[in-house]
Amino acid sequence: MFYRSVTGIITSKEHSDKMKAKKFILKKPFEGLPKKTDFELIEEELPPLKDGDVLFEAIFLSVDPYMRQERIRPPLGTTMIGEQVARVLESKHPDYKVGDNVVAELGWRSRTVVNPDTIFSAYGYKAKPHVLPNFGNISLSAAIGALGMPGNTAWFGLTKLCDPKAGETLVVTGAAGAVGSLVGQIGKNLGLTVIGFAGSDEKVKMLKEELNFDHAFNYKTCNVAESLKIAAPKGVDIYFDNVGGKISDTIMNAMNLFGRVAVCGSISSYNNDPNNLPVAPILQPTILFKQLRVEGFFFNRWLDIWMEGVHKNLEFMKQGKLKAKETVIKGFDNMVDGFIGMLVGENTGKAVIEA
Amino acid sequence: MFYRSVTGIITSKEHSDKMKAKKFILKKPFEGLPKKTDFELIEEELPPLKDGDVLFEAIFLSVDPYMRQERIRPPLGTTMIGEQVARVLESKHPDYKVGDNVVAELGWRSRTVVNPDTIFSAYGYKAKPHVLPNFGNISLSAAIGALGMPGNTAWFGLTKLCDPKAGETLVVTGAAGAVGSLVGQIGKNLGLTVIGFAGSDEKVKMLKEELNFDHAFNYKTCNVAESLKIAAPKGVDIYFDNVGGKISDTIMNAMNLFGRVAVCGSISSYNNDPNNLPVAPILQPTILFKQLRVEGFFFNRWLDIWMEGVHKNLEFMKQGKLKAKETVIKGFDNMVDGFIGMLVGENTGKAVIEA
Repeated sequence: MFYRSVTGIITSKEHSDKMKAKKFILKKPFEGLPKKTDFELIEEELPPLKDGDVLFEAIFLSVDPYMRQERIRPPLGTTMIGEQVARVLESKHPDYKVGDNVVAELGWRSRTVVNPDTIFSAYGYKAKPHVLPNFGNISLSAAIGALGMPGNTAWFGLTKLCDPKAGETLVVTGAAGAVGSLVGQIGKNLGLTVIGFAGSDEKVKMLKEELNFDHAFNYKTCNVAESLKIAAPKGVDIYFDNVGGKISDTIMNAMNLFGRVAVCGSISSYNNDPNNLPVAPILQPTILFKQLRVEGFFFNRWLDIWMEGVHKNLEFMKQGKLKAKETVIKGFDNMVDGFIGMLVGENTGKAVIEA
Repeated sequence: MFYRSVTGIITSKEHSDKMKAKKFILKKPFEGLPKKTDFELIEEELPPLKDGDVLFEAIFLSVDPYMRQERIRPPLGTTMIGEQVARVLESKHPDYKVGDNVVAELGWRSRTVVNPDTIFSAYGYKAKPHVLPNFGNISLSAAIGALGMPGNTAWFGLTKLCDPKAGETLVVTGAAGAVGSLVGQIGKNLGLTVIGFAGSDEKVKMLKEELNFDHAFNYKTCNVAESLKIAAPKGVDIYFDNVGGKISDTIMNAMNLFGRVAVCGSISSYNNDPNNLPVAPILQPTILFKQLRVEGFFFNRWLDIWMEGVHKNLEFMKQGKLKAKETVIKGFDNMVDGFIGMLVGENTGKAVIEA
C-alpha cells in the first residue's frame, strides 16, 4: 500500500476481461477495530446485461467512518456497502452511455452489472447514480469527497444546523478528516475563528499551514480545556463534533450561552458494542445551563437540495478557498487496509481507494 | 409543617408592625442535599420608604429546583433568591398602589422595601414586578405556578422547542412536579399521547386519574425501557427532560428518528458537585443515529412574549383542561423545609410556601 496526493484527471484503464469482477464480502461481525479476516475478497464472472442494466467499473472507492457502525453494516455474507466513482463500460439503460462517470452506491466491488433504477443506499433510500459533469482539472475522486457526501455533510451540517455568524468561534474535532477538514475551511470562508483538534502533530501542522485554521491542537498530547482557554478566549459558539466522548464534554463545557453543536460522527465509540458504550459525565447540566442546541444528523436529510452544497463547495474550490485533502490508497485489493487505516486516523482528509 | 391543596382566594392578614421583616440568608455553600443549617433566619426593621419605593408583603413564596444550582445560588451571607406573590402595603411609586398584587423577584423575604425599577432576577435581567390582574376564583399562588414561570416553562418549552404534532408520543420525567405536571396536560390538550415518569405510586395514580396522562410509571420501581415498549409501541417523538442522568439515556434510546428533546432541568444531578458529575453512557451515538435535536433552555428566553403562555394556560384552566396541582407549606419560617422537601420529591405539582 502507498499513499499519494491525487491531482489531474484519471485516465481509463485497459482490462483483459471486463466481465470479471472482484468484491469484498463481510464474513464476520466487527469486534473492536475491524480486521482483515472479517472480510473475504471474491472473484466472480458478471452476468450478461439485460435491458436496463449498466456495467460499471470502479475508479475510486470510498471508505468512511459510518461503514463501521453496527447499525449500518450489511448482513454477513453480503457485499460491503459504500459509494464509488465509476465509469460506464456498457449500457442498456437510456440514461447512461459508455464513458459516463457516475457516483454510485455499489459497495466494495470492482465492476458491477446493475439496473441503476434499482439501487438503494445503505440508509434505505433510492439512490439512482448521478452522471458527473466535466470536472476539468479537479480529480474525479472529489465526487466522493469535497464535492460529494463529505463535502455536503460539512456544508449543510455547518450552515443548516449551526447558524454560523461571522466573528463567532467554531471548534471541529476530527479536524483533519474528510468532513472536518472541509468544515474548518468553510467556517473560515464564513468569517469564523476556527479551532481544530486532530490526532497527530503532522495533521496539526497541515491544518494551520495548508488549510488556514486559526488554531489546531493534537488532542492526544494537549490539555483540551487549557488549549481552548487560549484559542477561544471569548468562548466557543459552534462545535462540529465528529468524534463524541470525553473531548466533546470538555469542548461543550467551554461553550457560550445558546451555543450550537452538530453531532456528525461519534468515531470514538464506533469500535464499542452499542450496548456497552463508554461512560462520561452526564451532558444534561451543560446543555441546560448553556442552553445549547445539540443536533445529530446524516447528510441524507438534504438530498432534495443536494446540488446547493456541491455548487457552493465547487465555487470555494475554484477560488482556491477550499482545499480537498485526500489520502489515496492504490489498488482495489487494499480496500480493507484503507478502511482500517482510516478508522485509526492514518488518513489526512478524505480516504479513497484508487481501483 | 403541613400540606394542603389551595383553593379559593387568599384574604389579607393583620400585622402588628408592618415594618418588621424576616429573611433567610445563605450561610454555607450546599453540599449534597441542602440542610437547615445552611440557612439563617434573620429578623430586621425595614427602612422608611424613599420616593419610588414600595413596601411589599409576601403572600406566597416559590421554592424551585433551580435554586439548588451552584451556578445560580446567591453569594454567602446574602438573601436566598426566588419569586414571590406579594401585596403592596405602602407605595411611593406611581405604578403601584396599596392592595395591588404582584409577582416579584424579592427572594426569601417576608416583607421588602425596594424601588421596583431596580429589581434584577437571579438570571441577571431586569425584573420589574408585574401587577397581577384579578384572578377570580383562581388562587394567587398560580402566579408563581401554572400562570407564572413553571407554566410558561411548560408551554414555551413544549411548543417552541419540541414541534408537537397531534398523534405523536411525549415522555415527561419529573412528571408530577411543578413543570412536568403541566407539560403532560398541555401535551394532552395538543393531541399527544402522554407518558409520565414520577417517583411514587401516589404520584403515578394522580397523573393517570386526575391529570389525564395516558400512561404513568414509578421510575423507582419499574423497568423504564420495558415500560416504554408497552406504553410507546410506535416509539417516542418528544422527551421533556426535567431530571437528566440515566433515565434520560434510556428514554432517548427509545426515541424515533428526528425526535426532539427539551432539557428543562437536571434535578438528578443538582446535589452533585458540578465538577464531579455522575457518569452515564455517552449520548452522542444516540443523538447521531436518531438525528435527535436536544436543546437546553430556561424560561427567560421568552420574556418578550411572556403573556402568550399565561393566556394559553389560563384558557386551558378555565376550560377545565389544565389542573394546577400545588403542595402548600404554611408559614414563612418553614421555607427551608419546603425547599428541601421539594428537592427530594415530597411535593406533587408546584411547591409553594404560604407566608
